Amino acid sequence: MTRVHVWGASGYASAEAIRLLQTHPHATLGALESASHAGQALAEHFPLLRWSALRFDGPGAVLAAVAAGDVVLMGGSNGTAREHAPAFLARGARVIDLSADFRLDPSAVYGFPERYRDAIASARLVANPGCYPTAALLALLPLMALGVARQIVIDAKSGITGAGRNPAVGSLFAEVYGDVRAYGLNGHRHEPEIAHELSAVGQTAPFVFTPHVVPIARGMLVDAYVVYDHALDENVVRAAYEAAYEHRSMVRFLPADRAPSVTAVTGNNRAEVSATVHGTTVRAICAIDNLGKGAAGQAVQNFNVMHGYPEECGLDG
Amino acid sequence: MTRVHVWGASGYASAEAIRLLQTHPHATLGALESASHAGQALAEHFPLLRWSALRFDGPGAVLAAVAAGDVVLMGGSNGTAREHAPAFLARGARVIDLSADFRLDPSAVYGFPERYRDAIASARLVANPGCYPTAALLALLPLMALGVARQIVIDAKSGITGAGRNPAVGSLFAEVYGDVRAYGLNGHRHEPEIAHELSAVGQTAPFVFTPHVVPIARGMLVDAYVVYDHALDENVVRAAYEAAYEHRSMVRFLPADRAPSVTAVTGNNRAEVSATVHGTTVRAICAIDNLGKGAAGQAVQNFNVMHGYPEECGLDG
Amino acid sequence: MTRVHVWGASGYASAEAIRLLQTHPHATLGALESASHAGQALAEHFPLLRWSALRFDGPGAVLAAVAAGDVVLMGGSNGTAREHAPAFLARGARVIDLSADFRLDPSAVYGFPERYRDAIASARLVANPGCYPTAALLALLPLMALGVARQIVIDAKSGITGAGRNPAVGSLFAEVYGDVRAYGLNGHRHEPEIAHELSAVGQTAPFVFTPHVVPIARGMLVDAYVVYDHALDENVVRAAYEAAYEHRSMVRFLPADRAPSVTAVTGNNRAEVSATVHGTTVRAICAIDNLGKGAAGQAVQNFNVMHGYPEECGLDG
Amino acid sequence: MTRVHVWGASGYASAEAIRLLQTHPHATLGALESASHAGQALAEHFPLLRWSALRFDGPGAVLAAVAAGDVVLMGGSNGTAREHAPAFLARGARVIDLSADFRLDPSAVYGFPERYRDAIASARLVANPGCYPTAALLALLPLMALGVARQIVIDAKSGITGAGRNPAVGSLFAEVYGDVRAYGLNGHRHEPEIAHELSAVGQTAPFVFTPHVVPIARGMLVDAYVVYDHALDENVVRAAYEAAYEHRSMVRFLPADRAPSVTAVTGNNRAEVSATVHGTTVRAICAIDNLGKGAAGQAVQNFNVMHGYPEECGLDG
Repeated sequence: MTRVHVWGASGYASAEAIRLLQTHPHATLGALESASHAGQALAEHFPLLRWSALRFDGPGAVLAAVAAGDVVLMGGSNGTAREHAPAFLARGARVIDLSADFRLDPSAVYGFPERYRDAIASARLVANPGCYPTAALLALLPLMALGVARQIVIDAKSGITGAGRNPAVGSLFAEVYGDVRAYGLNGHRHEPEIAHELSAVGQTAPFVFTPHVVPIARGMLVDAYVVYDHALDENVVRAAYEAAYEHRSMVRFLPADRAPSVTAVTGNNRAEVSATVHGTTVRAICAIDNLGKGAAGQAVQNFNVMHGYPEECGLDG
Repeated sequence: MTRVHVWGASGYASAEAIRLLQTHPHATLGALESASHAGQALAEHFPLLRWSALRFDGPGAVLAAVAAGDVVLMGGSNGTAREHAPAFLARGARVIDLSADFRLDPSAVYGFPERYRDAIASARLVANPGCYPTAALLALLPLMALGVARQIVIDAKSGITGAGRNPAVGSLFAEVYGDVRAYGLNGHRHEPEIAHELSAVGQTAPFVFTPHVVPIARGMLVDAYVVYDHALDENVVRAAYEAAYEHRSMVRFLPADRAPSVTAVTGNNRAEVSATVHGTTVRAICAIDNLGKGAAGQAVQNFNVMHGYPEECGLDG
Repeated sequence: MTRVHVWGASGYASAEAIRLLQTHPHATLGALESASHAGQALAEHFPLLRWSALRFDGPGAVLAAVAAGDVVLMGGSNGTAREHAPAFLARGARVIDLSADFRLDPSAVYGFPERYRDAIASARLVANPGCYPTAALLALLPLMALGVARQIVIDAKSGITGAGRNPAVGSLFAEVYGDVRAYGLNGHRHEPEIAHELSAVGQTAPFVFTPHVVPIARGMLVDAYVVYDHALDENVVRAAYEAAYEHRSMVRFLPADRAPSVTAVTGNNRAEVSATVHGTTVRAICAIDNLGKGAAGQAVQNFNVMHGYPEECGLDG
Repeated sequence: MTRVHVWGASGYASAEAIRLLQTHPHATLGALESASHAGQALAEHFPLLRWSALRFDGPGAVLAAVAAGDVVLMGGSNGTAREHAPAFLARGARVIDLSADFRLDPSAVYGFPERYRDAIASARLVANPGCYPTAALLALLPLMALGVARQIVIDAKSGITGAGRNPAVGSLFAEVYGDVRAYGLNGHRHEPEIAHELSAVGQTAPFVFTPHVVPIARGMLVDAYVVYDHALDENVVRAAYEAAYEHRSMVRFLPADRAPSVTAVTGNNRAEVSATVHGTTVRAICAIDNLGKGAAGQAVQNFNVMHGYPEECGLDG
C-alpha cells in the first residue's frame, strides 16, 4: 500500500482522484489539504463523494504528514505547485502534479504513459498532462512516422468542468446551457504544451488550436486534421494507429465506420480514437473524459506505472 | 411614448425587461444604471441583447435623468429598492420594483394584474410579484370560492436563472447539470408573500412550499395540491378556473387531458394552468417563465396596465 | 458463481444490469436474448458497454441455455414475462422480473429488500419494483407507525430513461430539453403498485400521484407529503426514519438540513431520504437512480439476497 | 399580403416557418398540408405554436387551394419536392423548397440572399440552402478574393433538430445528452452542396467536412479553417469580411476579440462570423440557428426578397 496525500484537494480533478483512490487496492489516502475548505466534509461539495466521511485538512497538513515513499498529488491552481513541490520532494515523497507548472520543465517527467512509460516508472516528479494535450496527442502521435506535415488543425470541444470549480459568470448553468462557443481565439495556455510534445517527436508543423465549451459537465472530443503535401494511403495510416494502440489497455483505435463517443469514456480512464484519410489530409478524432484520462484518471495511471502496478489498476480495467 | 429607466440593470430579469422594452411600441429606454457594469456594453453580457448598441450607465444615472411621468424599473438585489425608490417617486416618476422590498408593504400595489388590475392602473409604486408566488397564485386563486382548505402543498420546479446572475458554486453548470434538488427545506423568502396573498382572499389553510432547481435555464412548473375536508365536483372546480381565466389574455386554462408545458411559455409572458380533482384534493399545475410572467414580462404587463395600453402590448400577444 | 441469463436484454435497465453483472464477483453472464437485436454487439448500442465484446443472442437462447440453479433476469416489455417466465421456472431457474407483470401477483415475492428481505432470500420468482414505487415507498414506509393519514401527495420527477429506449417523439432530445412536464394526469400504471404496498402496511389513505419528466437521462426525485389530522413531533418522525434505515447499507437518512441529491445516487444503487415536519404534514423526499435502485441495481441487490451474498456486492458498496 | 401554403408542414423547420409567418405583416397562411398529421392541432405538437388554433390539412390541400401569386413553402423529406413542386408552379405559384431536391438543379435559384439576392427576387423556384452549407458559406465566401486555397477543413457542431422530428433511437434525449459525436465519417449529403457553391466562386480547394451533434436543441457553430500556401495579412482578411457584411442586416462580422455565440442567434435569423489569421491559415467561425438562418428564417428572408419587402421583415430586425 502506498499512501497518497492530496494537496489542493477541493477542485473537480482532485475530487475525482480522491474518488478513484478510495477504492484503489494499493493506495490509502493521507492528508487532503485545502486552505479554502479546511474542516469541511467532502460529501458536502461533491455528489460522487456524498457517502464519504472524509474531511478536508487545513494548510500545512500534507507537509506535516508526508514521509519518504508517499505520493503527493498536487491539484492546486497553476503556479502553486512550483512553490510547494520541492518541500514534498525533499521529504522523500514522489509528486504527481495536475497543474501546468512542470509540463515544460526538464526536471519533471511528462506523465503521458502512452509515450513515456519507462521514464514515469522511475520519476520523482511527474507533470500530469493537460486535458487538451492528452486528447490531441493521442490523436496525433501515431502519425509521426508520416513525417512533417504542412499544417495541423486541432478543433476541441470540452465539458465545462475544464474551467474549474471557481465561480465565474461564464461557467454558470444559464450561460453555458444552449451554447457552443470558442474561446481563447488569440491563444490558449495549452498550446505550448502541445507544441513541446509534437516537436519532441519531430512534428514541427504549425498548428491552429481552437478550444470550445459545449454544454456537458465532463468529457471532451478533439478533432485533429493533419494536412500533408502528398496523398496518403488509408491502410498505412490505419496501420500506424493499430500499432500504436494495440497493446495500450486504456486506448482503443476504432473500426473505420465508428466515431469516438464522449459518453463511452465519461467517468472512466479510457480513450477512443478514430482516423480517416481525405486526400492529403488525415482526420483523427479522440474522445476522453477531461477529468478521467485528461486529469485524475491519468494521474492514477501514472501512480500505477510509478509503482509497478498494472496500468489500469483501480480504473475499471 | 413613456420613458423607462432601469435601475439595477445587469441582472437576468432586468436584461429580459430591456429586451422587451426595446421593441415596445409605447416605451423608450432611458438610463440603464448598473454600478458593477458601468460603461460596459449590454451585448457583452446577454446573448439576447447581443446585437444591441446599449451600454450600462453608472451610479446616479437614473436619478439624474428621471422626470415626472417617467417609469423607473428597479432590478437591484433585495433591500436596495427600499432605499432608492423614494427619490424616484419624489421626482414624479412611477416605480415598478422587481425585488421583494415592497411586496408586503401597504404603500405599494401588488403587481399581479390578474387580481389587482384597477389598483395597478393608478399606482405610483408597483411591487412586481416573485416568480414562485405568481405561479402558485395563478394555480390557487380560482379555488377561493371553495372555502378554506385543510392543507395546501406547493411543489415547485424552477430553472436556475431564478437564483440570479451572481456567480455561486451552486449555480455552476457542472453542479446543476444532471441534478434535481430541493432547497430551502426550512423556509423560503417567498413563503410570506404567498401567505399574504392567499389570506387576502380568505384562504388561511396552512401550506408546505418546496422549491426545487431543475436543469433548465428559464421556466418554472408549480404543482399545487389543495386538500379539503369534503369530496369535490370536478365540474365545479373546472368552472371556477374557466371563469377566472376566460377573459385573461395571458393565462390559459387547459382542457382536462392536457398538462402545462414549460417550453410553451418560455420566452413569453404566458401562463398555462390545469386542474384535476382526486377525491377531496384538487391538483392544479401552472407553467410560467420565471423571467417572463414571473418577472420581466409581468413588469411590462404592469407597465401596460399603468398606462392604459393593452395588457399584452409588446409581449407577443 | 451463479449464471445469469438476461431475457429482453436490449432495454436501458437490462443494459445497466449487464454492466453491473459483468464485474460482479459471484455472477457470470449466460444468454443475452433480444429478438430485435439478435447478433448485434452490445457495444454498438450502449456507451457504458462500449468496450464489451458481448453480443445479443436470438429468440430462444435463454430457454436453450437455462439450467437448474441459474437466474433469469427478465427485461422485456410489460406482458411478456407472464408468458415466458413459467418455462424458466420449470427448468429450475429462479427469475427476477423487471417488468410490472408479477408485482401484484401473490405467486411472486415483491423484490423490495428494505421490507421483504427474508422472503426474497428463498423466492423462486421475484417481481422487481417499479422506479416510482421504490422511491415512494422508501419515503413513506417509515411513517407507518404514525397511523393512517388523511391524504398523501406524491410528486415525482424522473429522468427520461424511465420511458424506455423505444423511439417516440415525446422522448426525443428536442422535445424533452428545456421542458418540465407532468404526464398521466388521469392515472399511471404505477399507482396500483404503490397502493398495494401502502395498504400492506395499513396505510390506506388516498394519494395523488403526479409523475413528471425532467431533462436528465437518469435519476429521480420523489417528494411525498403526508397530511395527518393531528400535529406531529419532528423528533418522533425523524426517529422513525433513523430506525428504518440505520442498518440498511444502501439507504441513507439525511441530517435535517440536507436535501437528497439526484447526482449523488446516479449510477449507483443508493437512495437518499430526508424528512421534515410542517404542522400536520410530513414532507419526505427520496432520490434514487431510476435505472439503479429503481431497476437494475435493485435487481442485483435482490440477486445478492437470493444467494446469501452481501446486499451491496457488485454495487459499489 | 401574400398567401403562403406549407406543404409537408409537420417538421421542425416547417413549424418554425409557420411561427414566423403567423406574425409577418405581409403574409397570410393558407393550407398547411401534412399527410401524417391531418386534422390534428399544431398546438399539440409544437410548444412554440401552443397558443395557435391552426390545424394540419390533409393530402391534396395545397393543390386544391393554391392560386397564381401564392407561395408554397415545401418542407417534406428529401425527394418529395421534386415530385410535387411542378404542379404548384404550373398553377402560377412560386415555390420555396426547404429540402435538398433542387439545390444542385440549374432550374432553381439557390436561396442564399447574401450572394444571389437579385436572382432570388425574380425566381419562381427557390432552393433554400441546407443549414451546414449556410454556415459554411457565410464563413468561407468572403475569402474568395484570396484565391484558391490548398486545403479547407469544416468542423461543424449542430443541435439535434437538424436530424428532424422522426423518432430514431439516436435522437432520443438519453442518447444525445452528455455526448458530443461526429457522424457521417464517410460523407454527408451536404458536401456536394458546399462544393457546388465554393466552386461557383472559384474556390476549388479540397475540403474535409465533419458534422457533429452536440446536446442542444437548436443552433449550430461551424469552424472553417482555410490553409493557403502563403502567409496572410490579417488586415486584408478582416477587410474582406467587413466589405462582405457591412451592408448585410442579418450577418455581423465580429470584432477581433469576440467569438460567435450560438445563443445569440437562437430563435432569430441572424448570423455571427469571426475570422483570425494563424500563419498561412484563416480560421473563420460562424454561428447560426439551424432552424433560423439555416432553414425557416432564411426561407422567410427569401420570401421577403422575392416580394420586395425589407429582408428582415417579420424576422425581428
